[in-house]
Amino acid sequence: MKIPVKHDFPLTEIRRYLEPGPIVLVSSRWKDETNVMVMGWHMMLGFSPARFGCYILDGNHSFELIRRSRECVINLPTADMVDTVVGIGNCSGSDRIDKFAKFGLTAQPGRYVDAPLIAECHANFECKLDDDRQIDEYGLFIWEVVKAHVAPSPKRPETLHYRGDAEFMKSGGYISRRSKFKPQNL
Amino acid sequence: MKIPVKHDFPLTEIRRYLEPGPIVLVSSRWKDETNVMVMGWHMMLGFSPARFGCYILDGNHSFELIRRSRECVINLPTADMVDTVVGIGNCSGSDRIDKFAKFGLTAQPGRYVDAPLIAECHANFECKLDDDRQIDEYGLFIWEVVKAHVAPSPKRPETLHYRGDAEFMKSGGYISRRSKFKPQNL
Repeated sequence: MKIPVKHDFPLTEIRRYLEPGPIVLVSSRWKDETNVMVMGWHMMLGFSPARFGCYILDGNHSFELIRRSRECVINLPTADMVDTVVGIGNCSGSDRIDKFAKFGLTAQPGRYVDAPLIAECHANFECKLDDDRQIDEYGLFIWEVVKAHVAPSPKRPETLHYRGDAEFMKSGGYISRRSKFKPQNL
Repeated sequence: MKIPVKHDFPLTEIRRYLEPGPIVLVSSRWKDETNVMVMGWHMMLGFSPARFGCYILDGNHSFELIRRSRECVINLPTADMVDTVVGIGNCSGSDRIDKFAKFGLTAQPGRYVDAPLIAECHANFECKLDDDRQIDEYGLFIWEVVKAHVAPSPKRPETLHYRGDAEFMKSGGYISRRSKFKPQNL
């Protein structure tokens, strides 16, 4: 897998990558343990501060790493990484597997978090836990995204969107309606 | 626009339509007022009960209708409805426009909610408010989906996914990895 060059990206514009609903890889680190999990249940919750919510089942090995460290990185894989995504989904961190080594992924240091960025992904979003009050009842983590790293090319990466039943939808073509939008609604 | 025939659909499987992150139309009714809004910030929160979270800005005219009625319908438009979606996004319910009439949409009665289903959409999910405690701080409504109506054909409708900046991504092809998934991860 190739490693795209990434640039800083404005936090107010990260919805471009997250709002369409792609599968993401969540990397975490707590003490001497690092893990990666696959996640499809997430949403934007604000532009500024850039807020993001996600659901993590407490049965996931990453759950405690993320809850205790109060940090994570949301990494955006592209469609060519589908077998890596499936492989990560199939193995639990409780087996103490080094998923970076097993799947040939490159860990890069973040600016504000200890959890590693996955270099092969198109984008990486460093997150700090903003609110833990919905975790026990709903498995819902509310994050502030504090740093975004995005590859400027391709402008529209092919992303994976999970439908359940082992089936991924890929992102397709696009439609622009700029002339029809009210400016305040863009 | 044609009106697809829809069947009851298992609530435990609605993630098929919602997890990939499409733009949806939210219909609501409170007393004598009915409205429709466009929404892109949402997520699955559980299979059984079928829970769903969404963000609604309090500046939307629908906000109070939805909060007071504690009900809504999540309607899934297909890509051929893009100009209807843009048109609805451009006009506010505060103008007291009948959006069903203006956009040639057909209101159908729900089974469990007073808010109307949009017949032209591929799927309709009737929702009852499960938790209102995150509304004031985060604009986050947590719903239980109580009834799902889905057109059985096409099996993979072309959906719209918003990127901001007046640009929609359309759903594209699909990848199945059934043979590679652990059964418990499907």
